[in-house]
Formats: sequence, structure tokens, C-alpha cells
Amino acid sequence: MDITKMPLSGKTRKEHDLLGELEIPEEYYFGVQTMRALDNFHISRVRLCMYPYFIKALAMVKEAAAKANRDLGEIKPEVADAIIEACHEVEQGKLDAQFVVDMVQGGAGTSTNMNANEVIANRALEILGHKRGEYQYCHPNNDVNHSQSTNDAYPTAVKIALIFQTTDLIASLKELIGAFNAKGIEFADVIKMGRTQLQDAVPMTLGQEFDAYAANLAEEIDRLEQNARLLLEVNMGATAIGTGINADPQYSQICIKYLREITGLPVQAASNMIEATNDTGAFVIYSSAVKRMAVKLSKICNDLRLLSSGPRTGLNEINLPPMQPGSSIMPGKVNPVIPEVVNQIAYKVIGNDLTVTMAAEAGQLELNVMEPIIVYSILESIVMMENGMNTLREKCILGITANKERCRDMVYHSIGLVTALNPYLGYETSTELAKEALATGKGIYNLVLEKKLMSKDELDNILRPENMVKPRKFLRK
Amino acid sequence: MDITKMPLSGKTRKEHDLLGELEIPEEYYFGVQTMRALDNFHISRVRLCMYPYFIKALAMVKEAAAKANRDLGEIKPEVADAIIEACHEVEQGKLDAQFVVDMVQGGAGTSTNMNANEVIANRALEILGHKRGEYQYCHPNNDVNHSQSTNDAYPTAVKIALIFQTTDLIASLKELIGAFNAKGIEFADVIKMGRTQLQDAVPMTLGQEFDAYAANLAEEIDRLEQNARLLLEVNMGATAIGTGINADPQYSQICIKYLREITGLPVQAASNMIEATNDTGAFVIYSSAVKRMAVKLSKICNDLRLLSSGPRTGLNEINLPPMQPGSSIMPGKVNPVIPEVVNQIAYKVIGNDLTVTMAAEAGQLELNVMEPIIVYSILESIVMMENGMNTLREKCILGITANKERCRDMVYHSIGLVTALNPYLGYETSTELAKEALATGKGIYNLVLEKKLMSKDELDNILRPENMVKPRKFLRK
Amino acid sequence: MDITKMPLSGKTRKEHDLLGELEIPEEYYFGVQTMRALDNFHISRVRLCMYPYFIKALAMVKEAAAKANRDLGEIKPEVADAIIEACHEVEQGKLDAQFVVDMVQGGAGTSTNMNANEVIANRALEILGHKRGEYQYCHPNNDVNHSQSTNDAYPTAVKIALIFQTTDLIASLKELIGAFNAKGIEFADVIKMGRTQLQDAVPMTLGQEFDAYAANLAEEIDRLEQNARLLLEVNMGATAIGTGINADPQYSQICIKYLREITGLPVQAASNMIEATNDTGAFVIYSSAVKRMAVKLSKICNDLRLLSSGPRTGLNEINLPPMQPGSSIMPGKVNPVIPEVVNQIAYKVIGNDLTVTMAAEAGQLELNVMEPIIVYSILESIVMMENGMNTLREKCILGITANKERCRDMVYHSIGLVTALNPYLGYETSTELAKEALATGKGIYNLVLEKKLMSKDELDNILRPENMVKPRKFLRK
Amino acid sequence: MDITKMPLSGKTRKEHDLLGELEIPEEYYFGVQTMRALDNFHISRVRLCMYPYFIKALAMVKEAAAKANRDLGEIKPEVADAIIEACHEVEQGKLDAQFVVDMVQGGAGTSTNMNANEVIANRALEILGHKRGEYQYCHPNNDVNHSQSTNDAYPTAVKIALIFQTTDLIASLKELIGAFNAKGIEFADVIKMGRTQLQDAVPMTLGQEFDAYAANLAEEIDRLEQNARLLLEVNMGATAIGTGINADPQYSQICIKYLREITGLPVQAASNMIEATNDTGAFVIYSSAVKRMAVKLSKICNDLRLLSSGPRTGLNEINLPPMQPGSSIMPGKVNPVIPEVVNQIAYKVIGNDLTVTMAAEAGQLELNVMEPIIVYSILESIVMMENGMNTLREKCILGITANKERCRDMVYHSIGLVTALNPYLGYETSTELAKEALATGKGIYNLVLEKKLMSKDELDNILRPENMVKPRKFLRK
Repeated sequence: MDITKMPLSGKTRKEHDLLGELEIPEEYYFGVQTMRALDNFHISRVRLCMYPYFIKALAMVKEAAAKANRDLGEIKPEVADAIIEACHEVEQGKLDAQFVVDMVQGGAGTSTNMNANEVIANRALEILGHKRGEYQYCHPNNDVNHSQSTNDAYPTAVKIALIFQTTDLIASLKELIGAFNAKGIEFADVIKMGRTQLQDAVPMTLGQEFDAYAANLAEEIDRLEQNARLLLEVNMGATAIGTGINADPQYSQICIKYLREITGLPVQAASNMIEATNDTGAFVIYSSAVKRMAVKLSKICNDLRLLSSGPRTGLNEINLPPMQPGSSIMPGKVNPVIPEVVNQIAYKVIGNDLTVTMAAEAGQLELNVMEPIIVYSILESIVMMENGMNTLREKCILGITANKERCRDMVYHSIGLVTALNPYLGYETSTELAKEALATGKGIYNLVLEKKLMSKDELDNILRPENMVKPRKFLRK
Repeated sequence: MDITKMPLSGKTRKEHDLLGELEIPEEYYFGVQTMRALDNFHISRVRLCMYPYFIKALAMVKEAAAKANRDLGEIKPEVADAIIEACHEVEQGKLDAQFVVDMVQGGAGTSTNMNANEVIANRALEILGHKRGEYQYCHPNNDVNHSQSTNDAYPTAVKIALIFQTTDLIASLKELIGAFNAKGIEFADVIKMGRTQLQDAVPMTLGQEFDAYAANLAEEIDRLEQNARLLLEVNMGATAIGTGINADPQYSQICIKYLREITGLPVQAASNMIEATNDTGAFVIYSSAVKRMAVKLSKICNDLRLLSSGPRTGLNEINLPPMQPGSSIMPGKVNPVIPEVVNQIAYKVIGNDLTVTMAAEAGQLELNVMEPIIVYSILESIVMMENGMNTLREKCILGITANKERCRDMVYHSIGLVTALNPYLGYETSTELAKEALATGKGIYNLVLEKKLMSKDELDNILRPENMVKPRKFLRK
Repeated sequence: MDITKMPLSGKTRKEHDLLGELEIPEEYYFGVQTMRALDNFHISRVRLCMYPYFIKALAMVKEAAAKANRDLGEIKPEVADAIIEACHEVEQGKLDAQFVVDMVQGGAGTSTNMNANEVIANRALEILGHKRGEYQYCHPNNDVNHSQSTNDAYPTAVKIALIFQTTDLIASLKELIGAFNAKGIEFADVIKMGRTQLQDAVPMTLGQEFDAYAANLAEEIDRLEQNARLLLEVNMGATAIGTGINADPQYSQICIKYLREITGLPVQAASNMIEATNDTGAFVIYSSAVKRMAVKLSKICNDLRLLSSGPRTGLNEINLPPMQPGSSIMPGKVNPVIPEVVNQIAYKVIGNDLTVTMAAEAGQLELNVMEPIIVYSILESIVMMENGMNTLREKCILGITANKERCRDMVYHSIGLVTALNPYLGYETSTELAKEALATGKGIYNLVLEKKLMSKDELDNILRPENMVKPRKFLRK
Repeated sequence: MDITKMPLSGKTRKEHDLLGELEIPEEYYFGVQTMRALDNFHISRVRLCMYPYFIKALAMVKEAAAKANRDLGEIKPEVADAIIEACHEVEQGKLDAQFVVDMVQGGAGTSTNMNANEVIANRALEILGHKRGEYQYCHPNNDVNHSQSTNDAYPTAVKIALIFQTTDLIASLKELIGAFNAKGIEFADVIKMGRTQLQDAVPMTLGQEFDAYAANLAEEIDRLEQNARLLLEVNMGATAIGTGINADPQYSQICIKYLREITGLPVQAASNMIEATNDTGAFVIYSSAVKRMAVKLSKICNDLRLLSSGPRTGLNEINLPPMQPGSSIMPGKVNPVIPEVVNQIAYKVIGNDLTVTMAAEAGQLELNVMEPIIVYSILESIVMMENGMNTLREKCILGITANKERCRDMVYHSIGLVTALNPYLGYETSTELAKEALATGKGIYNLVLEKKLMSKDELDNILRPENMVKPRKFLRK
């Protein structure tokens, strides 16, 4: 809920900028530049306040800058202190409703930065005992934004927000992995046919299948963490283009030291500030890591839908928990709606990754002005992935059951069973058996016995599940 | 604003489905299946009510079905009439707040379809003098959804919604084209250098440049209309998979006749209902048409940013109207924020097109269950494009001014001018002139006079703007 | 096979350009500028000579220009005639080996254009009785390229090449549609279960399924033709940037008239030549149309792989013809290798479409310099699609057989059968039947008889295939 | 050049497989299964022999397997030794012409694997003193492919090939970084205007700009190496689906030990072989890393084209070395053809990354059958990137020169200069100066002196390049 959608008293204050004067409703902590942004950018209908971590990170950046400016004597101590207190309130979410600009905006994030500067300045003014808008005592640009440019403050806040959001994402991921692992244990003794190219291959256990899903997703923890670490390199102190013009030579280092304290994250200064100011490579590869996770989840959901296909005319190896009636026209139909929605999330994430790629490529010279769409796309992707993984775990994985008999029957009626006999009967004989089985509809097991190629004991031994689902030393005759 | 975010009285009614019973707050027109969907799908935080045309189209489909069912004696006339009246109210936007399911959902749109069925059923019950939830008098499935399946009703509504939304989109496009055309006229006598590969090429007028933008976008009207026409083919009557099982043989034709009347659109029945039920090709190519427009707009915005680069160290041929202060650190800086936001919209639209492509490819057998993400992505793209084009026109194109002197000076100091002399002086001499100009920094005009290659009159004649910016019969000597 | 990979005599001739002098092997019809391109662009290892239609189209453009220049007295008649004769030879493929530049090149196609200009000039010189390299008699630029720029000649040739290639593509598409249609007839009486969301839905025939594939692809003929028509708009006469500088005012119209005669295609002049010179929108939407076809083919191939999954633990409704042994380790395994390769082609085509999109967006001001990658990507896509469709038809579709018994058995053991009974037994009873069938593993058919809900005759009548696979008037009791 | 394009003697040998018998030309080392693949897959016209590292890696995998099989007594020592010797020859490139199957194929790489098995078997037969085709002495499947499946041998070879190719790629990258660094030093004292959003910002040096390019690309070394490391995890011993069926329990570990020795790479066994057999995540993120590099190179090339735009009507800060005449119609025009081709490579790489993404998502159950298109797309991307980077360095970066005067003049005529005066004159006065400069066309420098706001000495001191291009302690008055 943002403040601009709430009823107003009608009282206003006047503010002005280069383009002239505007009336600002008294309820708004933000000022004239945010008002211009509200007027300029009706684009996505998604506003800053939908991403609380982003607001928190903006305030943390402003707090660190205020502390550095105070230490360097760049702004007055009492003003700095008021700014810092205002930042604390914002970090606690108390002013979320005042962050109203559209996530999609021109100006490389200037509107977002000014929304933060104005809200913090006006709250600081109140703390100082002044009225909102009395910027002579605490100014959005001269004080809150001191020693900064949008070009360093904005991307720094974005990176911190993404790291916070990633922490939540990884927590959801770990829970999902846990759910797959639990099913791996639960289904450890369910023998079933493995399939390659959708054709019957060789036996495995359903537990192995779910373990593999867990293992597959477990790799993503490292991928996300490793790629999120690239976001720790920030350019505070770069000011306009990375040369640090108009900033104190010590500012960057002091500011980033405070940022580490405030965020608890090991952020550090980029070694080349000009490069760091125009490059968006960290976003590109981070987005790719999220995409990779989406690709994997989509593949897994495709599998779940395949394995639960049926109930009568599909594979029907597992049952997904029913979440809603499946059809108004077909009585008793239940559909795999949860994996289906995760697939769709994955397609959106992959689309967003393309948006990020194109926006990154569009940077020119000393700045990439397309950062807002990068930020919006990645945040949307992460939040949807987090929602999707929670939904998948709670409403699907935890409730999956196995059709153990069905799985076992398919193994023992399959032709693929012949592969396990290959080392004993030879490739030639095995191929003949396979052909005959296919032509007659008979089972390999029965054919072997019928032809007296092996005794029942030998055959049962070879075809014992625990012997088929892992490597095994063969006895040559 | 959706109803689930508003305060509740605490009163409830009971409803049940296959999965059991739920308490439904009395304020909700929707029922148990929508409640399940709210519980199942917390995905995008974007709800149906953000797309009023979609709600309108759903109601129109339900109205058409009710009329066909009434005519065929499939549902009671008084029930049909109440449904029709309820549909009218929904079409007028009176119940938008009741359309609350997440745009991104599993189940191929079942939740959206049921949200509509339930809201309409409950409103119809009121009209009939019953209470909400007394489904024995008018049932969401048996009556509102009669002769339908999500698999026909949902995609049909989607297509109608897209056509409505396209009408608005084209209106915005036409206004934007008009703005470019007006600038084409205004700048008709501003001569400037054309550039290929960012290198000086040959002269043209700024008016020609803006005319070309208008002509470029004008082609999109046809493209959008032509591709939107593919959406007119609907599959009402297909029921579950296109075989029309459980529908009256006449139902499809009667329903679609009503749909034509209600929507005012020449919708027609697909010739192969099975194909029409599983195929999403119309969405794929329609999305591509929107993407093409985005590509063109992005290219134009790139040009506007190039042409207005400067003011001192760029091309500086045109001035975009200043919309907001450009920098907190650089006094007097004004940035091309409006074209910048349009570029970003374009990248989002291109990303969405990929999402649509992948979702379309993921269809399986008799249905494409990924339709919700297709719908969401296309609607998001269209609305953002419409917003972007309106913004571009109002806040940028209308206020563009030309730096006529600067443009002219660059022509007359350019080396590219030599191309116009080529037919008179020959390629060899022209090349020599070009080399000398480049090496010495002199102008072609002065060099020609200095070397007495032509008289001033001859030269001025050849280099008269109107002679350089179009084909011309050369006089051979 | 290109000429640069063949053994050389060691004899050379000298040629020079702005950058200096080079030795050209006597066997080469191309000259110094092509040599520079060979040196500059070792990029893709795919050369012009791999795309004969492109070479043919280049020659046709040069022929049309020569005829127009001859008529307008711009070049000498005997030189024009020699150029025209040389063009005829190139059109007949006699000089394909001389078209050697990398398809991927900078310079907006200049190298391709110059490769054509040089080969044609040198062949024309021979026809005129001169030696290769004696450009004073017939010059690549002054004569073959007269009144042209790469910026009009290159895209015009590209468009014509694409139209030719599309003709072949559509021929392959039509044959493939024919193959699906034939299977539709062959399988008309194979009743099977339809599936939505991979869950058992309602019955249909396998013939209907294949008919739907045919119908689905049949729509692509129109899409391809309609979008290829946009390529008929060419910009011959635009010269450098579309202003037609240095071209005779009549040239464009005469040249295009000849181009119509030579190509047999209704090409026409763009109405706005400046727009036509910098815009690549026709390529964008044409590529999208190819992409749409790829999406559809991929979906169909996914279906074929699903339907033929098994033989024992999959759906096993159809058999694809075995094309190669499927596994070195699993005796008797046969894989759906042909649909698999078509899926992969589709992914490549979709990737290429993205390349085209990005290249189109990267156009700047009066030219899109990224055209070569657009051309390469689209040509690669079309040729791969044509190969893929021919392969799919010949090596897969024609040999598909149905497992009629298996298909029928699955229908009669399915629970989805209950949907057909819905209008007779009511939704409540049907749901109870479905639940019981699922719980007990019994068939719906037997349950109905067991419970004496219907007589065997009634039941058999309702469940007669021809009654279940289309709409039907129900008798109310 | 592949063997199938060379003249044949006409002599043949007979071979057969499950599908029957074929005549094999005596010149071919490959046999019946490769012949089937040649017949089945005419898709891309790009054959294995275009990627020598891939052939080398296949042979290394076969060598490691032969050694492991020999140690375990699985195949006869003399046969193993002959296979190993044959592998050595293949690794040395002696049989490249025999690797003829299309890179794009169905069957998950079976055709590629069999091409290798057959060539190696037949060469081993010769080494053993037998004739090609006498497979009773050394069999492609039973011996060369022993203990393997395509599903482990193929992806393992792919990964090793990619690592080798990456080594070359990184070498080219390092050389390119070196070239940028050298220019950074060369241009260290060229002061110029930095630009954000294409608008004049604040001064920097051209050296800083090129240093930033070097720093930007330098990060890619780590990215490539880190992501290539994920390819070190291989699944040799997985056999069909990862359960290791029919392989000795020790085989995997011994085989991989040999693979480490042969390749010199620290390859290791995947911890979950089932996951490793169906997952393609390593390819997805590796492809993303290559994409990120492409995005960065494209941005840099866009900058180079902007900075060299002109010569008269563009920025004209730098000169790219002329590589070829730029225009047939515009005398003296030289175009930035090398950066242009690199942009196009980037778009192709980004398209290929999408192909990889889609193919990865399409994996099903125990295998991803789409690996061939993944391999083809990544290899194409890497080779094109390597070619592009070499070309960019040699033919562009090394020859770049700066227009030092022009750069300096633009700084001193810019309005952005006022930012440096901001701390001394205050934001208000600075803004007034900026406005007046813009309105009158005057320079900031002259205006300050004219208005006697500072002495010439003070002003010169502040505006000394070394003072403007880095952070600086300001003296408060």
C-alpha cells in the first residue's frame, strides 16, 4: 500500500526545483523531485514499496554516507545524526509507504535515489524540530546525498538489496532440497524403471530419482552464493563517473567501512571505480545463476508431471497431492497445478534474464542508464522463485506418494531388464530376447525361464533390486 | 484495489468442493474454488483486477454461453437471464474488486475461469432473490460454466481481452505517429548530416528523419491489426479437448454468434477445434508483433538520445524537453529520461516475448497448460507499451526543438559534403579533397573554392539543401 | 567448396585500393576489396557460397541495376551488356566458388556487395575481351555498383534470397503437412485417450490427433507467405541513406521494374526510402514467423516422443520407425532420434530469432549496420528448418504405426470415460464412480454394470467411439 | 575437410547392424552406425571435424576407458593397447577427416560416440594387423565402448573439449586485455569529457577509459575459469542412467584417474552420478559466462564506435585504424568495421545462450537428449568469440590513436566543467553559470574570468587535469 493511494487532508507545502514550483501534500515525506517522477513515470504500476529490502538498502547506504560525511566534517554533526536516525526508521520499514516511484524509470535511478533523499531529509527535519520542506536545515541533495551521485548510491543499494533477497531465496531453496531429500529416503526401496529419451532404460529406485533432484538443486546454493558475492563490490565514492570528483579522497573508504558495519555484509570498494560505475556484469551473471536454478526447477517439474501422469493412461509412478478440483467438465480429474505454476515462473525468469542481458548490453560510456529495468527484472525473478519454491515444497513435494506396486510391475514387465542380463547371457542372446519380448508381448523374466537360460534362483539374484541399481562385479564363467 | 485487501465484517458462509469445506467471508462474491486458488497461488502479486479488459472479456464469454444454453434449453430461462444480467454488471466493471486470483497460476486458467463462474453465479443468485452460496439455484459449474470447459472459455476470453487492449494500444500508437509527423513538418527545412555506421554520410533534413520515424511506426498499425486478427479464431464449444464432448452439436455456432453480438468483434469458430484447443500460435505471433514494435521504438529512442547528446560534447542536433533535474552532483545537467524509460520497456517486452515463446513450446498433447503466463506476459507488455508511447509523445516528442544552426554548420563543415560533388568532380578528385580536408581540418567548401575547382555560384547551387536531399539529374559535361 | 581452398597456380595480378596494393591470385575473379574482407573477417567459417540463393539474388540485383543504368545512359551499353551476361552466369551458379567472404562481417554488407561487384566486373571484363583486373574497361564500383550503395543493393539482395529460400521452405512444409494428413486418414478409427495436463481426459481418435498436427502446420503456410510479402518492399535507388543522392530520379523505378522481370517477384519500391534504408522490421517479423513454426514443430515432436514412449513403461500408443540402434549398452533399445533432432533445430531457430531481434534493435540513425548477422541467422534458420522438416517427414512421420489395441484398452480402462456418462448419470454419481475406480483399480465400464446403473446395451451405445469423439445431442430423461 | 567430400576408389567392405547391412567405402575408418548417422542427419552442415578439440577429447575418453578396462581385465591387453595407440593418433589430429557426423543430431550424441568408437576400432584393427571391419578382433561397442554408454562418454568428452577450447579463449582474452592496458598507458594524459546518459558529465582521461575496459574484461578471466571448473565434474562410470549398471564398481574411479593423467586436467567423478547424467547445469552457467563476456565486449565496441564517430559530425575523440574502404559511393569514408563485427558476434553468442537454456530445460527424467545442440551452440560461441577478440585486438585496438586536442577542447568548452567549480562557487552560482553558458554559447572558463569569480591562477589550478580526474580534498573558505 503506498501513501499516494490513501486519502489526503488537502493541506500542502510548496517546493521547487529547476523546473519550477509544485504543491506537495503535507502527508508526503517525499518532495518535488519524487512528484516529478510520479508524473513522468506511469509505466509498470509496480512501486518501490513492493520491495522492502530495496528500501532498507537505500537507507543503509544513506546512513553510511551520513556517517562518513560526519567524520570528514562534510556535514554538520547534528544534521548527520538526524539523517542517521531517519535512516534507522526507514530500515525498520516505518516509512515504506513513502517509497512510491515506479520501479521502471528513466534517469538511471535518479528518481529512486531522490525519493530516498527526500523522505530521509523530511523525516530528519522533523527529528531536528523543523517542518517538512524546510530544506535550509537539512537538504535532500546537499546533506542526505552529500558526496554521492545516483551513479554510486543507487547501484550500491541495489546490490545490497539483492544480497538480502538472496538470503531468503537460499533459505527457501534449502527447505525445498530438504523436502526432496526426505522423499529420497522415503522412496529408497521403490524400484522403478529409469528412462532415457522417454524410452525404457534400466532399473533404479524412486529414492535415487528424488535424491538426484535434491543433489541437483543443492548445487544451486553454491552457485547463488558465489555469484551473489560479486555483488559485494560496490562503487561508493565514485560519484558521477568513477573519478570521485568532489568527494574527499578518504570518503570512499570510510563510507564503505560503515556500510560493512550497518549491513553486516563484507562489501568492498571496487578496484577500478570507473569500470565499476559503468559495468553491470555482476547483475548479468547473477541473473544467469537465477536462470540456471529456474531451468533446473522447470526440468524437475516437468519430470514430476510426467511421473504422475495418468492415473490410468500415463506413467502413474507417483501421486501429487490434489490441491484443487481439476476440471468442471471431467469428474474426478486432478491436475498437477503446482508444478505447472513453477514451470511458468521459470519461463518468466528466463524472459527476465534476457531483459537483463539486453539492458546490460545497452550501457554507454561512463554509465549504464538501464539499471532500473535490470533491478526490477531481477527482483521480480527472485521473489517469484522464492514464492514458487515455497509453494512447490508445501503444496506438492511434501505430499507426494509412490505407487510402489505399479513401479515394480513396470520394471519386471520391461524389456530394459535385459540389460542387466547382458553380462551373463551376452549381447547377442540379449538382443534376441529383447526382440522376442517386443514381438510377443512376453516378459523378459518369463522368457529366460521358458528358454531355460538360467535357473530361477540365478535370475532372481541378478534381478534383485539392490543388484540392479548400482555397479556390480560380474562373475565371468 | 481488490476485495481481499479490504476490511471484513467477520460474517462467513460455508462452501465445499471435492477437497472439503471452507468458510467464505460474506463480502466475497467468489467461492470455495477461488479461495483454493488464493491459497495455492501467491506468485506474482499481480491479480486479475489489474486487467479490467480481461474481466470484461470473461463476462462476455459467460454471457454468450448463457444465451446459447438458454436457446438450447440447456439451462432454465430465468437462471440464464440472471446470469446474463450479472455478466452485464461485470462487463461494466462493477465487480472488478472480486477478481482476485493471481495472474500466474497452474491449471491452465481453471482458477481464473472459476473466479468468474463463482462471482457471476453469486451475483445471479442475488438477482434471483437468493443468497450467495445457494448454488442449488444457480451453480458456478453446472449453470455459469455449462457446456464449457476452462479449455475453451479461458482462451476465448483471453483473445477478446487482447483485442480490446490492442485497440487502445493502436490509438496510442497513432497519436505517437501523429506527433512524429508534426515534427517532420516542423523540421522540414532543417538541413543536417545523415550518418551511417555513426560516420558522416550525406545531407538530409531533420524533417526527413522524423518523417522516417513516423513512417516506420505507421507500419506497425497494420502489423498489430493483422496479427490481432488471428485472435478472432476461438474454440468455444471445444469443451475439454476439442472433440466437443458433452456439448450440443449446435452449441458452438450459437454461442459464437452471441459472442459476435456482445463483443462487436467478428470472432469465429476455429475450423479444427482440437488444434485450436492445444495451439497457442496466435499468441506467439501476436507477441512477436508487439516485440517488433518495441524493437522499433527502442531504436528510435536510441536515436533521440544520440541526436540530443551534448550539449557541448555530443551531437546536439535536437533538444528534448527537460522533465526533471538530471543530477544532484552536476549543476544544470538534464537527461533524456523519457527515451531511456522507453528503451527499458522495450527490453521488458522482448523478455516477455521469450517467456511467451517458451510457454508456447511447452504445450503437450491436447492442451497448453502454460497459457496463464502467456496471458500475463502479453498483457504486461501491451500495457507497458501503451504507457510508454503515451509518455514518449506527451513528455518528449511534442516538446522537441531543433538546433538549426548547429545542424547546418555540421553539414557545411563535413567531409561527407564531397559526395554531392562526386558526379561533378569525379571520384578521384573527390577522394583527394576528402583526404586533404581530413588532414588539414579544412572544409570541403573552402577547399573547392581555394583550388578553383568550381565557381562559388556553381558550388552553392549544388550544395543548396533542396538539391542534396533527394535524387537529381546530373548534367554531364 | 570455395575457390580459396583449392590449389593455386601461383600467378597473380596486382590491384589496389585506398589502403594500398595487393597481389591477387589469377584464379580469383574477386579482387582487392574481397581480399581485404578475407583478411579482416575470419569469424564464422561460413561463407557466402554456402547460400546459393543469396549469390543468385545478388546477381539479379546487379543485373537490374545494369539494365537501369544502361537505359538512363549512366553506363556504356556494351559494358552494361557484359555485366548483364556475367550476372546471368552467376545466377546460374557458375561462379559460386568465387563468393568467399564470411557471412559474418562488419561494414553492413560492404564486403558481400564488393565480392559480387568484383566477380561480376572481372567476368564482364573477360566477356568484353579484357583481362581480369583491367578495371578501366569495367569497374566494380563505377560500373557494376553504379547508382547503388551497399545500403540499398545488399538488403535488396537479401530480401530476394529470403523469398527464394522461403519458397523451398514452404514446399517442404506442404509435404510434411501432407504426411500428417495421410496419417490422419490412416488412424481415423484408432480410438485413444486424449490427455490434458498429462492427465487422462476424454477419448478422441489418433486420426484426430494427426489431423490436428496437419491443421496446426497448415496455418504456417499463410504466416510465412504473409510475412515474406513484407520482404517485397525494397529500397533500390535509396543509395547511401535513402535520399537517393547521386542517383537519377528515374533510376529507382526503372531498376525495380527490371528486378520484377528478372526475379519474377512483385517487388516494389518502399514508400519512404529513408525509413526503408535504416529499418530491419521486415526481418524481425519474418524471423518471428519462422520461430513460430519452430515452436509448433517442437511441440509436435515432443508429442511424438511422448506418444511413442515405452515400449513397456511409457504411453506406447504409436511406433516411430527405427532409424539407428539406440544404445551400445541396452540391447534392443530404439530411440526417437528424428523428433529429437527437430526439437534441437527449433531451439537453434529460437536462439537465432533472438540474435535477429538484438541486431535489429542495434540500428542507429540512417543505417542498421548489423544486417549481416541478421541475414546469416535467418538463412541458417530457414535451411535448418527445411532440412529438419524433410528429415521428419521421410524418416519419421511416413513410417509411424499405431498400437491400436493398446490405445483402445487404455480408453476402456480409463477413468476419464466417466465424462461421457456425465450427462446420463449426473455429476455427483459420476464423481463417486471416478473415486471408486481410482481407489479400487476397477474400470468405469465394469463398475457401471456391476452397480446396474445402465444396461450393457445403453452403455455400449454411449461409449461407442463415434459417439464419444464429437458433440452429441443428449436425451434428457 | 572431411573424408566424405574426397574422391573414393569404389572399393567397399560390408558391415551390418540391427537395421541390416551396408556397403562402406574402404577409405572410411568409420562404419555402419556412422553411415546411418550421415544418412539420418543432414541438418547443420557443420561436422565434427570442424572442432578438433572435440575429437581430441573423445579419443582421450576412449583411451582412459581402455586403460581402465585393461586394468580390470575387462578387455584383452593387446586389444586395449591397440585401442590406446589408435586413440593417440586421433588425439594428434591424424584422423580428423574421419569425424564426419553432423554436430546437430538426435540420440543424445550416440552418433558422435559411435563415430569415435568405429574410427578407433578400425584403426586399432590395423594396428593389430587385421583389416577394417573385422570387428571380431576389436569391436566398436564391445571393446572401444566397453563399460561406457553414450550417456557418460559423450558428455565427458564435451566437457574436456570445452575446457581445452576455453584455454585458447582465455589466452585471446588476455592478449586483448593487454592491448587495452597498453592504450590506457598511452592515453594517460589525454584529458576528455566523461559522459553519462550521453550527456556531458565531468572530465576524465582517455587512459582511464581504456584502463576501465581492461579492468572490465580482466574480470572475465576469473568468471570463465570459475565456471569452466564446473565442467571438471564428469560422470564416467555412470553408464546408462547413472546407476553404473554393468560397470565394475572400481571402473569409474580408475577411468577418471587415467583421464586426469591423459588430459592433465583435475577432472573428478560427480558425487551423484544419476544427477550428473541428466543434468546440464554446468553448460548453462558456462554459456552464461561466455554470454556475459559477449555483453561486455559488445558494450565496449559500442563505445569505440561512439568515440570514433565523425570525423566531423561525431565525437571524434579517437581514430580506429582503417581496415577497408568504407563506401563505394562516399569518397574517403572509413567505417568501424571491426567493432561492428564484434557486436554481431555478441548477438550470436547471446542467441546461442538462449538455445542452450532451452535445450537444458528440455531434459527429461534420466537424460538430457538435447546435448548435441548445447555442445554445438557453445562451441560455436567460443570459437566466434576467440576469432572476434583476436580480430578486435589485431585489427582495431592496437592501431587506435587519440585526437588529443579535440578531446581537450571539448573539456574546456564544456559546461560540465562547472561541476569541478561546485565546491568553490557553490551549487547556486554554478547552476547560474551553467544556464548562462548554455544560453549564450560561452565557455564556463571565460565566464568565470569575465565575472571575476576567480583569478586565472586559481581557476587554472582547479581545472588542471590531474586535479579533476580523481578525488580531492577541498579547502573550505
